[in-house]
Formats: sequence, structure tokens, C-alpha cells
Amino acid sequence: MDVFKQMSFKELMKVLGLGTVAFVLGVEWLNWLTRRLRDSRGPLKEVLFFPSPQVCVEHLFTSHRSFPCACPFPHGIQTSFSRLLEHLLSARTSLEMCIFSFSNMEMSRAILLLHKRGVVVRVVTDRDYMTITGSQIGALRKAGISVRHEMSSAVHMHHKFALVDGRKLISGSLNWTLTAVQSNKENVIITEEPELVRPFQQEFLKLWEASDPANLKLQSKNGQIKK
Amino acid sequence: MDVFKQMSFKELMKVLGLGTVAFVLGVEWLNWLTRRLRDSRGPLKEVLFFPSPQVCVEHLFTSHRSFPCACPFPHGIQTSFSRLLEHLLSARTSLEMCIFSFSNMEMSRAILLLHKRGVVVRVVTDRDYMTITGSQIGALRKAGISVRHEMSSAVHMHHKFALVDGRKLISGSLNWTLTAVQSNKENVIITEEPELVRPFQQEFLKLWEASDPANLKLQSKNGQIKK
Repeated sequence: MDVFKQMSFKELMKVLGLGTVAFVLGVEWLNWLTRRLRDSRGPLKEVLFFPSPQVCVEHLFTSHRSFPCACPFPHGIQTSFSRLLEHLLSARTSLEMCIFSFSNMEMSRAILLLHKRGVVVRVVTDRDYMTITGSQIGALRKAGISVRHEMSSAVHMHHKFALVDGRKLISGSLNWTLTAVQSNKENVIITEEPELVRPFQQEFLKLWEASDPANLKLQSKNGQIKK
Repeated sequence: MDVFKQMSFKELMKVLGLGTVAFVLGVEWLNWLTRRLRDSRGPLKEVLFFPSPQVCVEHLFTSHRSFPCACPFPHGIQTSFSRLLEHLLSARTSLEMCIFSFSNMEMSRAILLLHKRGVVVRVVTDRDYMTITGSQIGALRKAGISVRHEMSSAVHMHHKFALVDGRKLISGSLNWTLTAVQSNKENVIITEEPELVRPFQQEFLKLWEASDPANLKLQSKNGQIKK
């Protein structure tokens, strides 16, 4: 500390300035290194397994908190479910979802938050399962999110995938329900591998067009196509 | 042709010999080139979408056929389902399956064929769904294939994945049923990406151990653990 005392103000400023520059360069270098390491392993490839223990995920929804969260669940623990929410909430421009069954409240909260932030959300779902008890499809529609559904009731739209910003695929066995997340043995693959993302983009567009209500040919009771 | 007539037998043999060597080298070079092209795109990454039209898949089961197949389905057409069967039938040493619902006859035929060829097949399935109408789990057990199931009836073993020779992952939304293959909107990812395969290997081993009947603590009616 004596060395600082003997320095003139000017010298002190010089040392502080150089120190700050060195610090910023150091952080930049570390950033560059982590990006290089991550890129050297190629695009993101991650697998999440469920069931996932219940933990607090409030921090994912409210970035600034003036007071500690009072909920009874363990805090500060990352689980498969919190990772899944993080990936969903990383959307900045678009989120396309092909979801067979959707009743998980926290996932619904995440989708509604993205919509509020201006992310363009589009959903294709199953004609029967969109009306199951606790389905969140109504809440999405109420908020103004475009939701379409499989036209035929003889088949199921059984996909459970989402595309974040058109470049990150989230897909697996997991239906977006509380039971799937907290009880069943399930998997979700998350990847940015273009060879895996592109086919799902095409599949989404195909199903989106095929379930366009405008294509719905109204059939009168005797099966005649109404113009 | 005159040039061959003027050649002595010895010269003819020389030309034929050189020609054969050149041909073999050419084929080898082409093989090397296709492998290099395939490898340059990194490990296998393929996506199959369903429903898949019904076509003849007999050729996948019987390599040598003395007479054309007489079945009514279109022949010589590759579909998502025939690709899926090809991947399954590519197993040479082991096949691990975590399957929620398994009633598709042709997939059962493929698994039984692999077992007959000496591939070590291990299956984990769901306690409730293994007894649905048309379930093929009984047929696998009857053939001597080791099948274990989720112990608890409160949760579902909802995975639909398989691991071929411990290096190729087959996973998605598709249950191994006729309806899923021929009617529903479904997806299957097939990849040899180690970062995606390894976690599923660990998950299979975890579930295989957890559903070991030896760990089953027999509970008498009053809930006492029988020794």
C-alpha cells in the first residue's frame, strides 16, 4: 500500500488505467477461449433426461429480484427442467412448436413471456389432446399466439419438438406436461446440428401449412363441400 | 475385336489380368472416396418422419429370394419405415431398446431375427403398456430375449429409443406400433454422434439395473418386505 502513497495522482491514474485495460483484455481473451473451445466441439449437442426434481425456477422468469424468493423449493439448483426452460427462454426472434400434449404451467409461462417480449411463436398441436384437462393451448390462444391443430381426428400429431430462432432443435419423448417432467422416464435432445435442425424446420412448415384453417373445407352434414 | 484375335494366349491373359487389377483398384478407390465423403460430413445424422406409406419390406428379411415377392404392396420403394428397419437390422453385436409401447409386427420380426443371428438384445419397457393388445413383448420373451420393465406403476417408462451395437442411436417420438408408423405425425432421429449416443448408453444401463427383477423386494400384502 506504501507504493501507492508515494505515487503522484497522475501515476496512480496511469496504473489504474493500464490495470483496467489489462483486465478487459483478459476477460475478452477468456471469452474468445471459451467460444473457441465450444466451437471446437462443433455445434451444441445436449441430452436431458427426466424425471426432473422440483426446484425453484423463478430466477429464469424475473432477471432482477430485489428480495430472495420465498417459495418452498430448493434454490440455485440446475435440473433437466430448468435447463429446458433456459433453452426455451433463449429465443430472441422465433419459436416454432409441434407439441402433442401441453399442460405444463411453467412451460406455458415461458412461452407467454417470450410472446410478450415480441418473439414470434407458432404452435401446431393435436386435435384431441389440445382439449385435455389443464391444457395450456387456450391460454396461448387467449394471449394472441397463433395455434393450429391437426385436422384429422383419426391420426395424432404426436411430435414433441420445438425450434428456437430457427437454429436450435429441442425434441424427444417428453410431452410438455407435469407428469412427464416430474415422473416419467423421458428424454430430450437439444442440438444446433444443421443436418438435424433443417429437416425439422421443413416438417414444421409442412404441418403449419397443412393445418391452415383457411384450407379447411367446411363439410355440411351430408358430406357436401361447402364453397 | 480383331486386335484380340491377333494376340497370343499369353498376351490375352496379360491384358485380362491387368484389366482385373485396374478394375479392383478402381472399385477400392471409389469405396475409399465414398467413405472419405461420408466421414467428411462427420458421424451419421439422419431424421425420419412419419406417417410412412405401406410398402413391401420382405427383401430386408430374406437376402436371397428365388422368386419375386407376391405381396400386394409396392416393391423396391424406400420409406421412413424401411429405413428404420434397415438401421435396426444393421445390428451385428448388440441392440438395447427402451420402448414404451411395442406392438408393430414387422419391427418384432426384425428384433427376433437379430436375436436368432446371435445379436445380444436387451429390452426395457413400460409396466402397463407391455400388456396392451397386440403387444410383442411376450413374443420377445418367448424367444428368450431378456426383457425388464419399469417397477412402479405410478410412472411411465416413456422412452422410445434403441442403441445399435452401442454406437448408433435411434430415438424420437415414435412408439413402435402400427398406428404410429402408418398414421401419426412422428419423428425419429438416427445418429452416431458420440455426444448424443453416450448419454443414452448411460440411461439404458441405469434403467436396466433399476428394473432388475433381483432387486424386486417382494412385499407381502401388509407391506412387509419379504426376505
